[in-house]
Amino acid sequence: MSPTTDSPSRTLAAFLAGLRYQDIPPAVIARTEDLFLDWFASALAGKGARQIEIIERYAAAMGPKEGSATILTSRKSSSPYFAALVNGASSHLVEQDDVHNGSVFHPAAVVFPAALAAAQDLGKSGADLLVAAVAGYEAGIRIGEFMGRSHYRVFHTTGTVGTLAAAVAVGKLMDFDTGQFLHALGSAGTQAAGLWEFLRDAADSKQLHTGKAAADGLLAAYLTRDGFTGAQRILEGAQGMAAGMSSDADPAKLTDGLGSRWATAETSFKFHASCRHTHPAADALQVLMQREGLRHDQIAAVNTRVHQGAIDVLGPVVNPQTVHQAKFSMGTVLGLIAVHQQAGLTEFEQQALQDPRVAQFREKVKMTLDREVDGAYPARWLGRVEVETTDGRKFSAAVDVPKGDPDNTLSRPELEHKAAKLIAFSSAASDAEISNIIARAWRLHEERELSELF
Amino acid sequence: MSPTTDSPSRTLAAFLAGLRYQDIPPAVIARTEDLFLDWFASALAGKGARQIEIIERYAAAMGPKEGSATILTSRKSSSPYFAALVNGASSHLVEQDDVHNGSVFHPAAVVFPAALAAAQDLGKSGADLLVAAVAGYEAGIRIGEFMGRSHYRVFHTTGTVGTLAAAVAVGKLMDFDTGQFLHALGSAGTQAAGLWEFLRDAADSKQLHTGKAAADGLLAAYLTRDGFTGAQRILEGAQGMAAGMSSDADPAKLTDGLGSRWATAETSFKFHASCRHTHPAADALQVLMQREGLRHDQIAAVNTRVHQGAIDVLGPVVNPQTVHQAKFSMGTVLGLIAVHQQAGLTEFEQQALQDPRVAQFREKVKMTLDREVDGAYPARWLGRVEVETTDGRKFSAAVDVPKGDPDNTLSRPELEHKAAKLIAFSSAASDAEISNIIARAWRLHEERELSELF
Repeated sequence: MSPTTDSPSRTLAAFLAGLRYQDIPPAVIARTEDLFLDWFASALAGKGARQIEIIERYAAAMGPKEGSATILTSRKSSSPYFAALVNGASSHLVEQDDVHNGSVFHPAAVVFPAALAAAQDLGKSGADLLVAAVAGYEAGIRIGEFMGRSHYRVFHTTGTVGTLAAAVAVGKLMDFDTGQFLHALGSAGTQAAGLWEFLRDAADSKQLHTGKAAADGLLAAYLTRDGFTGAQRILEGAQGMAAGMSSDADPAKLTDGLGSRWATAETSFKFHASCRHTHPAADALQVLMQREGLRHDQIAAVNTRVHQGAIDVLGPVVNPQTVHQAKFSMGTVLGLIAVHQQAGLTEFEQQALQDPRVAQFREKVKMTLDREVDGAYPARWLGRVEVETTDGRKFSAAVDVPKGDPDNTLSRPELEHKAAKLIAFSSAASDAEISNIIARAWRLHEERELSELF
Repeated sequence: MSPTTDSPSRTLAAFLAGLRYQDIPPAVIARTEDLFLDWFASALAGKGARQIEIIERYAAAMGPKEGSATILTSRKSSSPYFAALVNGASSHLVEQDDVHNGSVFHPAAVVFPAALAAAQDLGKSGADLLVAAVAGYEAGIRIGEFMGRSHYRVFHTTGTVGTLAAAVAVGKLMDFDTGQFLHALGSAGTQAAGLWEFLRDAADSKQLHTGKAAADGLLAAYLTRDGFTGAQRILEGAQGMAAGMSSDADPAKLTDGLGSRWATAETSFKFHASCRHTHPAADALQVLMQREGLRHDQIAAVNTRVHQGAIDVLGPVVNPQTVHQAKFSMGTVLGLIAVHQQAGLTEFEQQALQDPRVAQFREKVKMTLDREVDGAYPARWLGRVEVETTDGRKFSAAVDVPKGDPDNTLSRPELEHKAAKLIAFSSAASDAEISNIIARAWRLHEERELSELF
């Protein structure tokens, strides 16, 4: 009833409304191009997967025959809603898209599908897309941090918070003012959904979560543009998101360092093709085995000392039955590292479920809650492993900054290599097209329009 | 990981898979026709409203130019997804659609839009539609009861639970087996969303909630049909709906009386055009004023003794600014009853905000939590009012079964009268068409196909 009253939501909305390209440091713009390429390749890597083909068929049945936006995996056009839906679904399939540690949120998978579809529909430039993406990242990361750890215990933050991040990105492409951003947040937040329960059954919901977050966020922005109103305090209100889905929400997080802290550039790239919660331990095991010169069959037991979130998300996966589930199995990920020295897409497809040595190694791995690791999380994701060898020796290793984190990030050549591998994995583009995609990403800030993507 | 294990979700899914037309008592089938007419008229009554026209434009922009399903308000065709979206949005706009007391859930607004769109798309009969609707009502009502009062305090149950009810109805039209129903529940439940926060700002989210619940439930069923999988225990699982969005969930409610108790027939019709939480007090005030021969200007104060849910939902609305908000203002509703003897659509449009006598009466009304009323809720919605007159007399009145409840239901002539008024309100159909709509509803069980609705 008090739309003019100050609130954390309003402060955030005012920041988003005022954000201009020239306000964003060049390094953040360049990092956003990095994130764009990493996302684009991740989305293409989902091509051909059963879940994605089902959603493509749904888009074909329910959407228009052609439209202003591109479905990346099929290279068909559709309306922006269905392009965001399919591209959002495929972005997260191979689990190689980016992640922001502090919010445990995968921004690219929801922000870019919505922003690219809307940018195509609205005839916007590469620079417009970059500003929109930064707006989506800055808002989504802060909202994820605001919702807190209690939210992530049950809810898939990328699905819930992702709906708002996507709405913000599209709203920025529509030049929303403060009031419109508040309405868009309201309409997005009241659609926010996504539960972790699917992990227990290796069900397909993760693709639904990212696809729907992108599409529903886009929907919220398009409705807002036409005058549809939303709650003014969907985040911190008495019957808002935090009230319903968090017990440790902190409104100060919503406005933390707006305009000075660039959360976009805090986003990590994934190095292993698995759930991010496995990465610190995977890096630490790799360091330990190299340092001590150990082979997998010399190891009798591995104790990974982890934060509670890792136990919540990975704990239910005891005996993985699918490749996707294997990516949420700490034992399988460490088994791939131990036996095959890497846990990339190819190893997951060809070895995670097939190689009996990986399954044997899996049985040797346990997770233990570590107070130090848990205390540092989610700001820092510490890797701590303890290994006992078959001949009774004991070792431990610690990695404080997993590969891909901002302080240990991927260079542009590393990102190009990763992107090329991702796209080649699903045969979604030719080598020449891959080169072109990479070249366009690096000059995204200069691109006048985005209709022809390949 | 144990899809063959017994669970309340599975028991419910097995009941839904086995449900046949001939298993449903004729009186329940007939009541479902009543509910269908009441819904159809409610959906048409939303025609021309700003929120609905915005969503119609969205459907036109994002959907196909034509399709197998009918958007009732515009009489245009589209794909089933967009027909469910728009029809779901319009169903609840005038707040005259049905409600199930025990679950505090409005089944028609979400079940029929999805079921009708899918039935048209799949070429199903009226009898098929009725069975599908019964499946959706039986499941949705039990899931609403399962989620409990704690859920409803923050979440709009019709939005959240409605997504699953819609998925069930569409799944029944697709002849789902037990396993498919479990997947559809999983995919619907992980999309379940809708927060009450919008009430504080009189925002448009209610239309978004019912529209999205119908459309997203339909989406869940269509994906399931094509092999998309969902969590097997989305309701009662450790990271499922109840874990995330309820503190008093009772799994026994999910299977309560399956096959013997017909929850569909427990559904109430709305008599006043306002939030159901106002109805018991409105009925009681009407009884009291008639009994004592009081005029509105003889009344100095009204104390409505209510359940906590009424305070939660109506309490934030102190000074209504829109017709929609007025429907959530206890004082305004009682003011219309006191001054105009009824609180129908026309009174809300023409008097609720305009008539100073209604505003004066509103200021005389307060709500007080009553232990007896609260204890009976949500199974029974008791009306208790205490009135003090300007000359110092004190009266009280009690209504135990508000008009429209199963034990005080609307007859078919009363339903026809209500439907005709609803449709005429928005000029959505001619008198001849209204007669035809009513006649078709009463023979719905015999209809071979549903493509031509007007």
